[in-house]
Amino acid sequence: MVSFSISGNYTDLYELTMGEVYFMEGRKDDPACFDYFFRKIPNAGGYVLFAGLHDLLEVLETLRFTDADIEFLRKLRFSPSYIDFLQGFQFRGSVYSVPEGEVVFPNSPILRVEGTLFETQLVETLLLNLLNFESLIATKASRMRHVAGRRILSDFGLRRAHGPGGVLAARAAIIGGFDSTSNVYAAGLYDIAAAGTMAHSYVESYDSELDAFRAFAKSRPNQCIFLVDTYNTLQSGLPNAIIVAKEMEKQGWRATGIRLDSGDLAWLSKTARIMLDKEGLSFMKIVASNQLDEYVIRSLLEQGAPIDIFGVGTRLVTGQPDAALDGVYKLSMAAGRPRLKLSESIQKITLPGIKQVWRVINKNGQFFGADAIGLSGEEYPDMIYDPFESGKSLAIGQYNRGPLLQKVMENGKRLSPSLSLHELAAYAAGRLALLPEEYTRFENPHIYKTGISKKLMDLRNNLIDQHKTGKNESPDHSGYSN
Amino acid sequence: MVSFSISGNYTDLYELTMGEVYFMEGRKDDPACFDYFFRKIPNAGGYVLFAGLHDLLEVLETLRFTDADIEFLRKLRFSPSYIDFLQGFQFRGSVYSVPEGEVVFPNSPILRVEGTLFETQLVETLLLNLLNFESLIATKASRMRHVAGRRILSDFGLRRAHGPGGVLAARAAIIGGFDSTSNVYAAGLYDIAAAGTMAHSYVESYDSELDAFRAFAKSRPNQCIFLVDTYNTLQSGLPNAIIVAKEMEKQGWRATGIRLDSGDLAWLSKTARIMLDKEGLSFMKIVASNQLDEYVIRSLLEQGAPIDIFGVGTRLVTGQPDAALDGVYKLSMAAGRPRLKLSESIQKITLPGIKQVWRVINKNGQFFGADAIGLSGEEYPDMIYDPFESGKSLAIGQYNRGPLLQKVMENGKRLSPSLSLHELAAYAAGRLALLPEEYTRFENPHIYKTGISKKLMDLRNNLIDQHKTGKNESPDHSGYSN
Repeated sequence: MVSFSISGNYTDLYELTMGEVYFMEGRKDDPACFDYFFRKIPNAGGYVLFAGLHDLLEVLETLRFTDADIEFLRKLRFSPSYIDFLQGFQFRGSVYSVPEGEVVFPNSPILRVEGTLFETQLVETLLLNLLNFESLIATKASRMRHVAGRRILSDFGLRRAHGPGGVLAARAAIIGGFDSTSNVYAAGLYDIAAAGTMAHSYVESYDSELDAFRAFAKSRPNQCIFLVDTYNTLQSGLPNAIIVAKEMEKQGWRATGIRLDSGDLAWLSKTARIMLDKEGLSFMKIVASNQLDEYVIRSLLEQGAPIDIFGVGTRLVTGQPDAALDGVYKLSMAAGRPRLKLSESIQKITLPGIKQVWRVINKNGQFFGADAIGLSGEEYPDMIYDPFESGKSLAIGQYNRGPLLQKVMENGKRLSPSLSLHELAAYAAGRLALLPEEYTRFENPHIYKTGISKKLMDLRNNLIDQHKTGKNESPDHSGYSN
Repeated sequence: MVSFSISGNYTDLYELTMGEVYFMEGRKDDPACFDYFFRKIPNAGGYVLFAGLHDLLEVLETLRFTDADIEFLRKLRFSPSYIDFLQGFQFRGSVYSVPEGEVVFPNSPILRVEGTLFETQLVETLLLNLLNFESLIATKASRMRHVAGRRILSDFGLRRAHGPGGVLAARAAIIGGFDSTSNVYAAGLYDIAAAGTMAHSYVESYDSELDAFRAFAKSRPNQCIFLVDTYNTLQSGLPNAIIVAKEMEKQGWRATGIRLDSGDLAWLSKTARIMLDKEGLSFMKIVASNQLDEYVIRSLLEQGAPIDIFGVGTRLVTGQPDAALDGVYKLSMAAGRPRLKLSESIQKITLPGIKQVWRVINKNGQFFGADAIGLSGEEYPDMIYDPFESGKSLAIGQYNRGPLLQKVMENGKRLSPSLSLHELAAYAAGRLALLPEEYTRFENPHIYKTGISKKLMDLRNNLIDQHKTGKNESPDHSGYSN
């Protein structure tokens, strides 16, 4: 896979198979609506940070079946008339979404796609592929930012990323609060600060560590971070870094710092800080790397490790241990009727109809602890109900609120230019600041609730009853899109 | 990221920074050699299945700095003369590798790159990015194949994959023993069988489940798998599937099967099998999906679940829970001298020099349980030593053996066309069949050993001593490449 583009065939086969049935049955242009949401927060967290919207909209705006796509679909023996249709296909639907960088919670619609049955179905796989992954990584990154305070966080993960997924990971990490990436491709594509130090191989390629450091200082005196653990951190690497940093000072340069990549990072960083300071090199930063994640960073800082910059790789870009957000894309409306999926498990019954979500705001200006979901035509509800236990209700009329879903694409075109990555990161940080700390802690965070309006509950219950009695008439309060 | 190509900037910044130092110092053309190996088998397994070689070689053969790359490097203020050099850069090195699909173990060189110091350093990140991920997924897939016997395994993972990483995952899954993928893009790119059924949304988009099944049967009578859990598996989905399958039979078609995607898959599959057989539909297959992995598949089959086809998504394509193979790329030779990295931890001291690996074969034709690593000039050793505890040795002279590393690229060109994915899968299956079951079991598998020759041990010990005493003379038995 030397080169690659997200085209029509970047999808599960069944999207195309179902599309052919819709095409053959004359149903491809039936109006339809799908919701994107997730059921479980990954990695035992209390929230998800929504990311990937920019990439998704860019893909939808340019989505085509390439010649190679069409050739392969002929081999798969799709019908010639359907293939003719696919050759001329463009996505012309509308997208409503919460802002990229929003803090979101389970079971609440994050994004919906309205359009023809064919186009809304086709884009399911690519939409999930982009949004699930970028949201996973933005969330993971935000947890590291949460414990790192104002210290610098840099993505070093490309070598352990899932192929080109590392490029999306670098972007998502910035939304989650990272400062920079080692990934040059992503830095160029997304206008991210590029960062890096030196490798053990570089040091080893010289006959002595001191020669290696001197050569680096000579070539890059303004960006000079010495990796000090190739042979022996305290006996060799650090003394050599100090020698070269002092030589640099005489020529008017300041070495940027040192990097620790093995051993006891807490102890080594404290010892290194003392050694550097003693030599008048208190301006030199300490970079740490090696299997870091939010728990290790927290532990290091609790121990008082004077680390200025954390280089985080594997556990950032893989979203380990869960390594996936379980986002799904479910039909809520087709051919003018609200739709739902039943299930043996009530948690898997979907919410029918076109919906709006309101973020409820506490008296103190923070997030209230429950989002309200209603039909998009209705007013903000005074009372919301647990979607799974209708006996549980919550009065929310007295609170401030804001609708979360806004139209961002119409007729296949974006309605406004995307914000820069730095604007998205600032938005995310601002929203996370409004989330009470009970939801941001790592151990047993509070569960942010989702409640549905009476009208939405009635619509759902009616549809469930109709399926049970075999009647499928359309109710008249289906909440059409605004 | 609508489109994408692996170009020169698909790398960590430090590769380019170090490259500039090599360039400035006149060292860019120094001969160098790097080894790829890993230290820990992911997901508590007993082996790794090596994958990604084809993709790597294709990338190396075509690697260039694009105009966009160069433009961004100017912004990063690399020196103009270095940028000129990068503009004309092509990879001209040699690659020695074990075959793709080989069973490999920790600390043993899997692949080595020989060439100029600049080019061998530059490709580190992309090499690790491709090989670590594809090997992770091929290994995970092979564990599922191990428990699934001859049942069909299909990759359904694109929606939970790490962006375009899902394309590489589909390929790697085939090497590990999967039969097909839902990922149309990957199927076309790599000549993989494409597979799929129908979604809940398809069923919901019709006013009745029966209508939905009939429409599908009409359009795709030769590939008809009914998803039966949209409303109620046993009360609705299965009875409707049976009605339509019987209607199809009257018209000379045979429905392919049903898919179960929720609930107790063991119980539902047994009940469904009985219902289908009772209706004379014993030819209909049962497909199961929903958070499957090697443990769930094993459990289902232990319970006697009559499932014919497993659709595996998230836990295949993410390589969960570890989600990464920790493969590294370490300098073993530069400017004619063997090199090593020391470490506080002896496990992290690297093996210097140009090396060969022999797979030792037992009297019964199976893998012996230990690989032998020597310098590439030397003969197969009679005795090997534990790389970390030199007191431990093993006599291996009496066994058959074969060298694992073969030259696959010279002067930047592949020496032979890649095997097809099906040939690679067959090779992998054949090699896994030679691995004793103590290494393939999931619970506390045996540890496959790696031993080094006396000459390699002496070389390493000499280099360690030289570093300790500050002398870095070149030993004369550095094992140049053949």
